[in-house]
Amino acid sequence: MANIGQDEDFAAAQKKAEKLGAKKVFIEDLRSEFVEDFIWPAVQANAVYEDRYLLGTAVARPCIGRSQVAIARREGAQFVSHGATGKGNDQIRFELTCYALYPEVKIIAPWRVPEFYNRFKGRIDLMDYAQKHGIPVPVTPQAPWSMDANLMHISYESGILENPKSNAPADLYLMTKNPEDSPNTPDVLEIEFSKGVPVKVTNVKESTSKDSPLDIFSYLNEIGGKHGVGRIDIVENRFIGMKSRGIYETPGGTILLQAHLDIETFTMDKEVRRIKQGLGIKFAELVYNGFWYSPECDFVRHCIDKSQENVEGKVQLSVFKGQVYIMGRESTKSLYNEELVSMDVQGDYDPCDASGFIKINAVRLREHHRLQGLSSVKK
Amino acid sequence: MANIGQDEDFAAAQKKAEKLGAKKVFIEDLRSEFVEDFIWPAVQANAVYEDRYLLGTAVARPCIGRSQVAIARREGAQFVSHGATGKGNDQIRFELTCYALYPEVKIIAPWRVPEFYNRFKGRIDLMDYAQKHGIPVPVTPQAPWSMDANLMHISYESGILENPKSNAPADLYLMTKNPEDSPNTPDVLEIEFSKGVPVKVTNVKESTSKDSPLDIFSYLNEIGGKHGVGRIDIVENRFIGMKSRGIYETPGGTILLQAHLDIETFTMDKEVRRIKQGLGIKFAELVYNGFWYSPECDFVRHCIDKSQENVEGKVQLSVFKGQVYIMGRESTKSLYNEELVSMDVQGDYDPCDASGFIKINAVRLREHHRLQGLSSVKK
Amino acid sequence: MANIGQDEDFAAAQKKAEKLGAKKVFIEDLRSEFVEDFIWPAVQANAVYEDRYLLGTAVARPCIGRSQVAIARREGAQFVSHGATGKGNDQIRFELTCYALYPEVKIIAPWRVPEFYNRFKGRIDLMDYAQKHGIPVPVTPQAPWSMDANLMHISYESGILENPKSNAPADLYLMTKNPEDSPNTPDVLEIEFSKGVPVKVTNVKESTSKDSPLDIFSYLNEIGGKHGVGRIDIVENRFIGMKSRGIYETPGGTILLQAHLDIETFTMDKEVRRIKQGLGIKFAELVYNGFWYSPECDFVRHCIDKSQENVEGKVQLSVFKGQVYIMGRESTKSLYNEELVSMDVQGDYDPCDASGFIKINAVRLREHHRLQGLSSVKK
Amino acid sequence: MANIGQDEDFAAAQKKAEKLGAKKVFIEDLRSEFVEDFIWPAVQANAVYEDRYLLGTAVARPCIGRSQVAIARREGAQFVSHGATGKGNDQIRFELTCYALYPEVKIIAPWRVPEFYNRFKGRIDLMDYAQKHGIPVPVTPQAPWSMDANLMHISYESGILENPKSNAPADLYLMTKNPEDSPNTPDVLEIEFSKGVPVKVTNVKESTSKDSPLDIFSYLNEIGGKHGVGRIDIVENRFIGMKSRGIYETPGGTILLQAHLDIETFTMDKEVRRIKQGLGIKFAELVYNGFWYSPECDFVRHCIDKSQENVEGKVQLSVFKGQVYIMGRESTKSLYNEELVSMDVQGDYDPCDASGFIKINAVRLREHHRLQGLSSVKK
Repeated sequence: MANIGQDEDFAAAQKKAEKLGAKKVFIEDLRSEFVEDFIWPAVQANAVYEDRYLLGTAVARPCIGRSQVAIARREGAQFVSHGATGKGNDQIRFELTCYALYPEVKIIAPWRVPEFYNRFKGRIDLMDYAQKHGIPVPVTPQAPWSMDANLMHISYESGILENPKSNAPADLYLMTKNPEDSPNTPDVLEIEFSKGVPVKVTNVKESTSKDSPLDIFSYLNEIGGKHGVGRIDIVENRFIGMKSRGIYETPGGTILLQAHLDIETFTMDKEVRRIKQGLGIKFAELVYNGFWYSPECDFVRHCIDKSQENVEGKVQLSVFKGQVYIMGRESTKSLYNEELVSMDVQGDYDPCDASGFIKINAVRLREHHRLQGLSSVKK
Repeated sequence: MANIGQDEDFAAAQKKAEKLGAKKVFIEDLRSEFVEDFIWPAVQANAVYEDRYLLGTAVARPCIGRSQVAIARREGAQFVSHGATGKGNDQIRFELTCYALYPEVKIIAPWRVPEFYNRFKGRIDLMDYAQKHGIPVPVTPQAPWSMDANLMHISYESGILENPKSNAPADLYLMTKNPEDSPNTPDVLEIEFSKGVPVKVTNVKESTSKDSPLDIFSYLNEIGGKHGVGRIDIVENRFIGMKSRGIYETPGGTILLQAHLDIETFTMDKEVRRIKQGLGIKFAELVYNGFWYSPECDFVRHCIDKSQENVEGKVQLSVFKGQVYIMGRESTKSLYNEELVSMDVQGDYDPCDASGFIKINAVRLREHHRLQGLSSVKK
Repeated sequence: MANIGQDEDFAAAQKKAEKLGAKKVFIEDLRSEFVEDFIWPAVQANAVYEDRYLLGTAVARPCIGRSQVAIARREGAQFVSHGATGKGNDQIRFELTCYALYPEVKIIAPWRVPEFYNRFKGRIDLMDYAQKHGIPVPVTPQAPWSMDANLMHISYESGILENPKSNAPADLYLMTKNPEDSPNTPDVLEIEFSKGVPVKVTNVKESTSKDSPLDIFSYLNEIGGKHGVGRIDIVENRFIGMKSRGIYETPGGTILLQAHLDIETFTMDKEVRRIKQGLGIKFAELVYNGFWYSPECDFVRHCIDKSQENVEGKVQLSVFKGQVYIMGRESTKSLYNEELVSMDVQGDYDPCDASGFIKINAVRLREHHRLQGLSSVKK
Repeated sequence: MANIGQDEDFAAAQKKAEKLGAKKVFIEDLRSEFVEDFIWPAVQANAVYEDRYLLGTAVARPCIGRSQVAIARREGAQFVSHGATGKGNDQIRFELTCYALYPEVKIIAPWRVPEFYNRFKGRIDLMDYAQKHGIPVPVTPQAPWSMDANLMHISYESGILENPKSNAPADLYLMTKNPEDSPNTPDVLEIEFSKGVPVKVTNVKESTSKDSPLDIFSYLNEIGGKHGVGRIDIVENRFIGMKSRGIYETPGGTILLQAHLDIETFTMDKEVRRIKQGLGIKFAELVYNGFWYSPECDFVRHCIDKSQENVEGKVQLSVFKGQVYIMGRESTKSLYNEELVSMDVQGDYDPCDASGFIKINAVRLREHHRLQGLSSVKK
């Protein structure tokens, strides 16, 4: 079992497993490596899938899978197993991780084994089985949707959420306050970056700060959660070719995305940024599809990491009522040149050069439109 | 002079121009064509420059330029002029539009004419000149920054904003309420799309609706403005190679971006979406750089337009305290298949297929990692 | 059975099928539609997979599949079948075509049915079975490799070619002469294009010409074959994640690729070309992977087709000893402006503009390198 | 003056310069660094501009410019100069290199100085001037076109070549034999690569080999030239927005491109290759446009270099009558798995997996076409 920051009674889980006959039980605290090895690269990449989803579940899977494989190898296990369903992305993410890191492993995925899924058609069959065999299960009925939680986010899907038109119930969210009930005054944070990852966060009004990766991320979750930041309701395209509806809350991740976008554009060359933006989109796609451990994702991560060498400095932002507002930024590595860009000072710049620049850019356009007989002018 | 929705006394401007000796004065109401011919294509494209800027100024320039060229041609004018500075993007946007649509035109850009900019080094020189020559100018000192306003947005830059670290003053914003002072209850809107553009907006609680392009966009501005939606503070990369700091408010455009992203992903095939996303990024870049009227932008617009054929349906969203929350969506053209994706129903889907899918996707990864000697497993 | 230009005794095949008990036998002449609906779009796209493979097999599969599905629908068949192996691309190309055009069809692929492939482990088992059941089979041993032939190309793989180091035997090629034995004088062709596809080919010395798609393509095959054009020996990446070695000869397609590249660059705007190049690479990938009939391939084909509107004119080239040499081109739609580009005439161009153009392009570079402390200068 | 492999009397040039009053004359042998620092990265990138041009001139410019700047800095020169015309790419390539590496330098480009180009309208004016001032000039008339030569290629343009329809004269080419007159037997080479660059070339029949960069490249030029390899006649798009016609011969570079493509695909993961292909296209564009010394080109080169780590092994090829034929390849780093791909052996592969793979890939297509009402089936 992996502790990646979800709210869970690990001791009870251990007992239950032992009671059910598990020979060995491994409960690993992966929180720090989850932040440093998986969330941080996603921050560097500005990783967003299909323009909106911050990949909270997707980045956790290879983290869990890597640890599971490490234990399987250590223990000499030839089989690994997981409980993901047969229609989702997670089965792919787990299994590609396993196959990549332990090519000869055998995987048991009960929800894809006909003997299993034909016998247990739904929750009731499973409950009956559990009762008959003395397996302790929660007595209170669960929420009418499915949930996945970790340090980065909680996702909600299935059940009543499968109707894409129906609104999410107000009490669904566990990680973020409803912005209608969140504080009426903002928190102001200063986030300091080095090589594209946060190295310190300071609450400006309270003068408190955090500087280890896990503490930083946890604190951003706390502040983001308090102000209702990072809620989205989307329909997305699964790797498997279906559209599905998901509701996500990613408080800390959303703050970091905004802050990183800001410091990155401030310090990175424009054309490097364009190329890196394309690599970031590719990275998000690879991670979503389960290819964290793949030669192409290694390659893309390497390139993105290279692009972050000078991404350092401080971003000031306010968090309020579900929003993150960038307020200002500073960096010794910035390519921003106040004098050069100033409207009031000329700096090392000759405005006449712009005439030539424009004229040359127009050469092609003038040729084209002259040949088109100027048909574009409507009036 | 173009009326593209800015708050301006056009009658006074007309009088002033005539008083100063203008032989003819043209003040054109371009608001409807600005929405339909320029903002709508940007909505279809989800046009965002450098991940954040919604291009409010950039889409207005070719609209103004097109009209200016049309008048110049009609009047037989050989020269056109504009007041954009020599360091910015707007000079390029205006001039490329002119050269593209009127290749033989001559352009006078005083801020790039040494005789002009050497004589008038700043505002005071201009004020002196105006006073001496009886040109009426505002007596109250203007804000210590520069502003550009139209129906889509207001941008603020220069002056005290040139220091990228300094925060924007609270009273800067003219188009949006401060979210701290905005209403404590959301407005709920339903936006209906056809071919990727909004055809109707309904305020669900108030049961009012708008259905002409200009009315729809103006109403979204009103609601967005009321709730403080669409404020950003960014550093961006100008075409000319400098970084500049800009503060923007784009209330209606921000609502539309979120709504369009939602209905588009709901109705568009996943792989078409990926290709179209790349075209949208290209489109944003072209528009930002002033190439609206170019063969490549024509081509990209055509392709994006094609992709929007089935982008239709309704999105429900709430607008509150600076945020837009998607609540649900529906469409008869959706590729979302509730039964297929359901966790509870199998639908026309065999989970066993996923095993093969994953195994085949792993072929390459297993080969790669076997050859790598499994060096990736850390523990 | 599809006639897509391969050298085959269709009457004998018909008889054999009837003798073996086929209720109905359909042998369709698809050659013209193969050229017009499949090869021509590939020509427009400059479709090349992994920089070298001209997709001769890949474009034929959807052509065959479309026809097979049309017959299956007409005849009310619920099943279709094919003989492609379980490791290759063709199974995917056939089946995706079938599923796309006839979603409810069932597909029988014997080489993936364990009962079949466990019984027939190789050629000898099949021969035995044929002999026992009176199925006529060729008595002479086949070449020690596998072959796929159609109007566009012949591919050779497997058997002794599976060793990527071993050279292809000289007598392998059926469609092209060995350049060592080909004529010692070139043929000179003029190919005329309209909307990006050839509409006429003329042998300049012989003054003969062809102007229907099938005739044009067949003639280019004849000339290309005579001069040994279009042989390649490559290792490529299959969709299924394996690398495989293939030897291909594509005489007519190779000539057309060179000619189309030339007329396209001559007539198409530079920036449109860049975007279209990306779409062409995507198209090649989709076709290779079997997604001809997919929303994204429809979309890409539409965009590419749009880009070809002005791709018209004549290209003169010589074909000699395995090579195609472009000699010259002309077009009334060309954006080439002899006066503008001339070194001897100034044209409508002011060289001073280039100074500004360069200076502005250098703004960013100067900023960057100044900040880097000029560390790039080695000496 | 830079010696980058062109055929030139450097001693005479030195004398002439001194005679004309040059205080100091620097003639630098840059051939080795040209190969290692400029041609090798282009080989790694498979750098081809607009699908055809191998960038022989473009890669030489930053090499020359870097050396020029180094001398200017060493000598304390504030000005540098070059003789490139005002319509071409070379002025940009030289000057961006200078500005990037020596931001404060002043550049004198006579062909863009009105006092100069108005006085010297063409060759005759220059000849007159030279005669009057005792400047020695060639008496024999030059070829009616312009030429640029270096170790990598010779380009021909302008003059009678400006008419894009007219064929290049047979006696134009200086670096390659006319394939009609080239040997009737091929040379067979084995090229060995490490990290994506050639480290050894062996003539298989003659058992001779070369193993330093300059020797390898020179030898490939010799063999390529002898067999007439690498001639192209193209129209290309200049950075400045014009189309121009150029004729190029790049014997060694053409052989290397083919060999590198082969060993790269053989050893590089498929998906890494796709991403790297995009970076290679970007690289070619940047180099063509003069941005060798730019942050984005540094970044792209770094990424491409990273991709080449395992690109090693040997390629066997034959060179004959203008063509390069790949014959076979081998590598200890190859991802090619003969057993896995074999048609005769099953290897570690279950064909049934392919069924699932195809069915899952079809999910999206079946959904799409079902909704489309199957309108794609024509018959």
